[in-house]
Amino acid sequence: MSLGAVTAAPIEPTSAQAARRAHILDAAEACFVRNGFHRTTMQDLAREAAMSPGNIYRYFDSKEAVVLGLAERDRERGAVLVEMLERAGDRRGVLNGILATYFSEMTRGAAILRLDLWGEATRNPAIGAMIARGDEEGRMWLIETFSAIAPGCDAVGLFEAVAPLMKGLIVSRALIPDYDAGPAIRQLLALIDAGFAGPVPAAEKAA
Amino acid sequence: MSLGAVTAAPIEPTSAQAARRAHILDAAEACFVRNGFHRTTMQDLAREAAMSPGNIYRYFDSKEAVVLGLAERDRERGAVLVEMLERAGDRRGVLNGILATYFSEMTRGAAILRLDLWGEATRNPAIGAMIARGDEEGRMWLIETFSAIAPGCDAVGLFEAVAPLMKGLIVSRALIPDYDAGPAIRQLLALIDAGFAGPVPAAEKAA
Repeated sequence: MSLGAVTAAPIEPTSAQAARRAHILDAAEACFVRNGFHRTTMQDLAREAAMSPGNIYRYFDSKEAVVLGLAERDRERGAVLVEMLERAGDRRGVLNGILATYFSEMTRGAAILRLDLWGEATRNPAIGAMIARGDEEGRMWLIETFSAIAPGCDAVGLFEAVAPLMKGLIVSRALIPDYDAGPAIRQLLALIDAGFAGPVPAAEKAA
Repeated sequence: MSLGAVTAAPIEPTSAQAARRAHILDAAEACFVRNGFHRTTMQDLAREAAMSPGNIYRYFDSKEAVVLGLAERDRERGAVLVEMLERAGDRRGVLNGILATYFSEMTRGAAILRLDLWGEATRNPAIGAMIARGDEEGRMWLIETFSAIAPGCDAVGLFEAVAPLMKGLIVSRALIPDYDAGPAIRQLLALIDAGFAGPVPAAEKAA
């Protein structure tokens, strides 16, 4: 493809290709949520996207590639939020806003997909590596942000304290159809506030 | 079976049947952890248990029945722990002990199985109902226990605050091979202590 792009005009303009990719990813998200990652075939995906299987394979050569595409899209969306934070003067206010927005706007479908991918990650090394890479990026970013906001705080301990809460919030969002994320989000922000002010309980070794 | 049990001697003594059931459940746990709930067939299960498929079906008539059996066994094990608490004078100490024991002794396999069942629960109504029933039992028990230990506390708010943390702990246990649950368990116990002493942050409405 790279050589073709240089020597000949592409069959579709790039923006149309990007739109087609986005359309396939939307269809994949719908299939995975409805039937689970494992049960979904490339044929199901083609039907959902109203495209021929051959056409789907021009964009993604496997179901794993589709999942990697979804993860990449998630990462790009996250990068937009992070850029907002970097530009803002009030980093702490923006951090709170980002966390609250991310968890309150997460759809049930997105949470179910995440749950499936976690299960899949324990058995499929490609998915496992993808999840681990995403988790590590989020971890590094949060630890750096915590340190930048409250230079003296135990940023690593604080991250360890809030990480299970964030994962559990996604599980609750997936399992409970009319889940109200409000209390857990307030809990998360209160825990971060406490961590900025002093040692987090999890960081203290039991007596 | 019930009529047969009354009119004729059972083929096997009850204790042997119970042992056989337990053996099948152990085999099922191993299969589900290795290949996932959805990918495991009753044939896989028979092979793992070194029994004929026909013999397996004498104990469980479907894969869903096996899962229900696993959930029932979990519930019985939990009941033993609860009984300890009920008999003990120091309810608070025993509560801490139960939570610490439950989460630190949970195997990675058990956590992976739970993760799979959560995903399955979003699409399979029988599994969904089973998970919801188990969650509701745990919820009622923890709320009652919180109230008994600290009569003035906001037991419901406290439960809402700790529930995502407990779910997230299971996700971390499943995803991270050498996961150290210690910090998250200390975090959980510290949060409960704080809830006994005053309002939990999650219960306060944001200003």
